[in-house]
Amino acid sequence: MSYNLLKGKKGIVFGALDSNSIAWKTAQRCYAEGAQLVLTNAPVALRMGEINKLAEECGNAPVIGADVTSNEDLTNLINQSREHLGGNLDFVLHSVGMSLNVRKNKAYTDLNYDFQHKSFDISAMSLHRLCQCLYQADAMNEWGSIVALTYIAAQRVFPDYNEMADAKALLESVARSFGYHYGVKKHVRINTISQSPTRTTAGSGVKGFDGFINYAEKMSPLGNASADDCAAYTVSLFSDLTRMVTMQNLFHDGGFSFTGVTAEVIAQMEK
Amino acid sequence: MSYNLLKGKKGIVFGALDSNSIAWKTAQRCYAEGAQLVLTNAPVALRMGEINKLAEECGNAPVIGADVTSNEDLTNLINQSREHLGGNLDFVLHSVGMSLNVRKNKAYTDLNYDFQHKSFDISAMSLHRLCQCLYQADAMNEWGSIVALTYIAAQRVFPDYNEMADAKALLESVARSFGYHYGVKKHVRINTISQSPTRTTAGSGVKGFDGFINYAEKMSPLGNASADDCAAYTVSLFSDLTRMVTMQNLFHDGGFSFTGVTAEVIAQMEK
Amino acid sequence: MSYNLLKGKKGIVFGALDSNSIAWKTAQRCYAEGAQLVLTNAPVALRMGEINKLAEECGNAPVIGADVTSNEDLTNLINQSREHLGGNLDFVLHSVGMSLNVRKNKAYTDLNYDFQHKSFDISAMSLHRLCQCLYQADAMNEWGSIVALTYIAAQRVFPDYNEMADAKALLESVARSFGYHYGVKKHVRINTISQSPTRTTAGSGVKGFDGFINYAEKMSPLGNASADDCAAYTVSLFSDLTRMVTMQNLFHDGGFSFTGVTAEVIAQMEK
Amino acid sequence: MSYNLLKGKKGIVFGALDSNSIAWKTAQRCYAEGAQLVLTNAPVALRMGEINKLAEECGNAPVIGADVTSNEDLTNLINQSREHLGGNLDFVLHSVGMSLNVRKNKAYTDLNYDFQHKSFDISAMSLHRLCQCLYQADAMNEWGSIVALTYIAAQRVFPDYNEMADAKALLESVARSFGYHYGVKKHVRINTISQSPTRTTAGSGVKGFDGFINYAEKMSPLGNASADDCAAYTVSLFSDLTRMVTMQNLFHDGGFSFTGVTAEVIAQMEK
Repeated sequence: MSYNLLKGKKGIVFGALDSNSIAWKTAQRCYAEGAQLVLTNAPVALRMGEINKLAEECGNAPVIGADVTSNEDLTNLINQSREHLGGNLDFVLHSVGMSLNVRKNKAYTDLNYDFQHKSFDISAMSLHRLCQCLYQADAMNEWGSIVALTYIAAQRVFPDYNEMADAKALLESVARSFGYHYGVKKHVRINTISQSPTRTTAGSGVKGFDGFINYAEKMSPLGNASADDCAAYTVSLFSDLTRMVTMQNLFHDGGFSFTGVTAEVIAQMEK
Repeated sequence: MSYNLLKGKKGIVFGALDSNSIAWKTAQRCYAEGAQLVLTNAPVALRMGEINKLAEECGNAPVIGADVTSNEDLTNLINQSREHLGGNLDFVLHSVGMSLNVRKNKAYTDLNYDFQHKSFDISAMSLHRLCQCLYQADAMNEWGSIVALTYIAAQRVFPDYNEMADAKALLESVARSFGYHYGVKKHVRINTISQSPTRTTAGSGVKGFDGFINYAEKMSPLGNASADDCAAYTVSLFSDLTRMVTMQNLFHDGGFSFTGVTAEVIAQMEK
Repeated sequence: MSYNLLKGKKGIVFGALDSNSIAWKTAQRCYAEGAQLVLTNAPVALRMGEINKLAEECGNAPVIGADVTSNEDLTNLINQSREHLGGNLDFVLHSVGMSLNVRKNKAYTDLNYDFQHKSFDISAMSLHRLCQCLYQADAMNEWGSIVALTYIAAQRVFPDYNEMADAKALLESVARSFGYHYGVKKHVRINTISQSPTRTTAGSGVKGFDGFINYAEKMSPLGNASADDCAAYTVSLFSDLTRMVTMQNLFHDGGFSFTGVTAEVIAQMEK
Repeated sequence: MSYNLLKGKKGIVFGALDSNSIAWKTAQRCYAEGAQLVLTNAPVALRMGEINKLAEECGNAPVIGADVTSNEDLTNLINQSREHLGGNLDFVLHSVGMSLNVRKNKAYTDLNYDFQHKSFDISAMSLHRLCQCLYQADAMNEWGSIVALTYIAAQRVFPDYNEMADAKALLESVARSFGYHYGVKKHVRINTISQSPTRTTAGSGVKGFDGFINYAEKMSPLGNASADDCAAYTVSLFSDLTRMVTMQNLFHDGGFSFTGVTAEVIAQMEK
């Protein structure tokens, strides 16, 4: 199905690892809605090669590797994208996150601060770098839209989420702060989508993920939002229907965020 | 412009007083997006007759008067709408509000409680009544969408907004509470849009409105959102792009809600 | 234990039904901290007679009945209190709430609106009435403190809490709105305390209360806050230590409000 | 004035630069309330020598230098403090912040990321390091209290606050996350106080500070909270009156945080 919502729009999608990725689904949906795309991911992720299938599906979109902690890589990505797309950008999806302390099984009360710095650099400061590179290169069109994916652990503690909670809080703050400056300068809007826990390849690695996704499902009046749902919602934020929405953290979670408890969870507690 | 986002969808729009109304613009935009509509307003407002122009524009949509404080009127509206539209509803816009204490120039520290009760009944409890009538008549389709318009005075004090701040806080709470129940039962989602101050016929009557709308403009990185912008955003919330968004209060305000101060306001403070 | 935190201060405590009441514990603690008190409750509650024991303990504090939905009763209470206490008031505790629809077993999707109006009048608008009567009688001292008790259902849905969620959202909005006006006029501060579910005589009546309080206990890193804890916290808000805190909703809940899930709850979900 | 609120309690106060510092006032007030103290600051700040006056006033409290970005320094500080105080700690004040990009006049849209990393390390991650060192050394008593100072720029954009907004958002997230773990383990509570802009030696250096503090004063129903007010409020959070308050960000700002606009600001806008 397509509404041509993004007809004539050009954008970059970060983070399409494989067909479970939210970014993968979003790229497909953006293309279906008429957008022209550039795909990017970390060089190490590109080596897996899956993204080339997606690129084909999306009108032979170029795949350009970029380390999100490198200004040079981001600048190169932006320059090549403009060249390929024949102009400035209308939208960017930031779907990037990685926790070294989680990978290394370090508890939140026993963090390695070098790991933490890298986790933040990749997961949160990367949004600032990206925005700063776009801003300084004047690479976004007026009323462009930047979306980053986040999680409600930025507001409330989910213990296994570990340092990524702090990374997401930082990411959301960057979205607000840069949203102000880019809004004033060029009407570019920046928002974060706070998505239900999603069974992606990245998410599945987290300890206790199954118990947790099951809890979220029972705590959400509409159930958990899927990667496909998230792709559709992201398209709405890239479209002209939402031009005055900026600096917001938007919960896309079937109502989880404003549910204190459900009858289903109480029933489980009484077992 | 149209994307056919609401093709095949049926809905009711409350509160289109005249061509400045957000509800007016929303009805036009819904119709353009392929929806079938019923229009409604208070009987006294209908007597002005303007709404008939809108009805014509919208494919000769029926205009059915309803007092939002009357279960009978709301039930009648729902029944007639289903008959006319040939089925259940996919969306409803609640754009209803009126403050008797403001009209009568009563200060917030000198409220008349009978007036207040009426203000709340019209402006906030009407959303509950509407949802309850829809729920009991099982009149919404699965994954239907209900949107009510609100204002940030529900979160922060704007002194001239008076008792309407409390009415809006109540309205937003009703949206959350009923959103839970309707979500669990039938995947119907309920959200509020917290809109920039808008120069409608209703809004313009408020004391100090000009100073205030000017302040909001200077405090919003993208400027104030217009009634047309709001219509477009509402369409996105009625569409299938946002099916997992529920129980949310969504700021549609050019960034006002997350701006502490702007350079422009500081400059003005230093005069 | 006493710190003399309220030495020389005068106040009114609403809602001490019996020795399980938060208001009862608060009155005891205020008296222990050196305050002079007046006690009040609804005439029907006074007839139970328990409050007289509390009055004795609190230096033979006068007990003055007042229907919180009556301006006359509130004005009479204020006048008698000033006379008895020999001056204006420094603090007031509003601990008042009652849901007719809950009592009558009406579901949230099947509310009786006359009941609802009464529930709101007693549980939420009573704070406005009280503040308005105090304001118009100029009965508070400079830097006085008004506290009302609320619950997190004002922010997130707990289905069995029913219409009281909306009443609490309204109550919190009134605290903010009146807090602005009373702050500007006389530096009087108004805050709400959002307390853990507490096994009071009133609370225990609510359907599913046991399952619920157990869930809250498991979801709070420090466990649920007790009535005694709440009394101590309220004293801090009546004291001069917190003079610049106003218009806030303060969670007093062992961390429940910012906990997304605990290890204990996840373990229970996996059973 | 003293209530003996902290009699028998032992704590560390970070960040008392000179007599304008909030930490300075807090140390004085804690001592007056009966606490035993250790004072600390960065070695470079200690070289100014002013802190020795404060140490004398506070019963010859030891002054122990510590670089908050060094685990070794923090561990040494904790060990020496326990030795000097003869036992574990009941409270800690974290009043630490520094922005290299602000100092170097780098705009938010032109940040140097090495500077930023250092700013975050000093201003935000230092709270994590401190908590982690305390936790691993098991250096806090049951029901101890840790408070960090923050600013509302963590929620809303104040453009001149620059990268410190992101640092404060990160700091608040750390307080929540560590508050969960320390609460579950040992009932230690961790909160942040979001203080009015305060004319300290550190604060005064920020560009546009005068216009800004003036704006905050006009936007706060009670005016800006002073450093003395903040010291008193912090004492309440170290005391046993607030044992069930944790993982909260507490606005101490004369009502600024929940005020949308004041009559005074509107009047200024109309000039």
